[in-house]
Amino acid sequence: MTTIAQPKTALSAAGVKDIPAQSEGFVFNHTMLRIKDPVKSLEFYTGVLGMTLLRHSQFPDAKFDLYFLAKLTEEERANLPQTADLTAYVSRQRSILELTHNYGTENDADFSYHNGNSDPRGFGHICFSVPDLAKAVAWFDENGVEFQKRPEDGSMKDIAFIKDPDGYWVEIIELKY
Amino acid sequence: MTTIAQPKTALSAAGVKDIPAQSEGFVFNHTMLRIKDPVKSLEFYTGVLGMTLLRHSQFPDAKFDLYFLAKLTEEERANLPQTADLTAYVSRQRSILELTHNYGTENDADFSYHNGNSDPRGFGHICFSVPDLAKAVAWFDENGVEFQKRPEDGSMKDIAFIKDPDGYWVEIIELKY
Repeated sequence: MTTIAQPKTALSAAGVKDIPAQSEGFVFNHTMLRIKDPVKSLEFYTGVLGMTLLRHSQFPDAKFDLYFLAKLTEEERANLPQTADLTAYVSRQRSILELTHNYGTENDADFSYHNGNSDPRGFGHICFSVPDLAKAVAWFDENGVEFQKRPEDGSMKDIAFIKDPDGYWVEIIELKY
Repeated sequence: MTTIAQPKTALSAAGVKDIPAQSEGFVFNHTMLRIKDPVKSLEFYTGVLGMTLLRHSQFPDAKFDLYFLAKLTEEERANLPQTADLTAYVSRQRSILELTHNYGTENDADFSYHNGNSDPRGFGHICFSVPDLAKAVAWFDENGVEFQKRPEDGSMKDIAFIKDPDGYWVEIIELKY
């Protein structure tokens, strides 16, 4: 096996290995969450967090849809490929959010997904970093977003957690330079 | 509220809104998963998937550690900031994987986290896109990685799902150009 040394300023810890040549070109592309109601989720991820819907795959026979979103920069929005099918573009990106909607859950008042932060635990959260935490908090309040943890709660004043429409935790941290 | 039109080639769907100016500069930074044994997880994410450990935050009083990893390109590895504290760098990246280790779980034979794909469902998977799916599958086999779905299983021949040491599903798709 051919390996590539980890960068000098990368950290080591028990278990950390050199980089296998076989993994070159791998891209950590997306995270998938199941959602109850796509209208509510799309309103939140586009209208509050400012994401862009890049791909919508519909599987009516199997009764589910997939939505692929990204938080694009102004430059990326200007340079988005001029094609209606952005599947290839999406495959090359990082930090895509895939939302899976199984038809009908939005009409079932008793239905909800599990956010991973109570038993049985597992998945914890997704996180957005923002230029100004206080301004972001004000923006979330303006939109009636529910907080799991406001910056002033607890000891970590530089972190907030909001909840998406399914109750998944979305950590909010400030970008550092 | 000032909004920015979604790009022309972006998709629309019920719920999709224009981009609020207040979200400009937001970055979808990371996804957090809890892990039972950091040695096994770091072996997998660095030694099989080729990620780099960029930040290791230790909270011995609260008995947990956080590990932040990224799948870097050769260019990014060469240009990593020359500082031991990459916290600021990490805050600006996309597709960071945060692994949370609560001390002691690695020694509890009966302990396991929930991967979100059986009841109660919620989180589904993370996904890596790879330059060559068949070569990636051969690499995973060489490392004894467990498959949830091999490419030849089911109708979707261009997708595989492997399992990380906690049983979280990792989708593998091929990069498209």
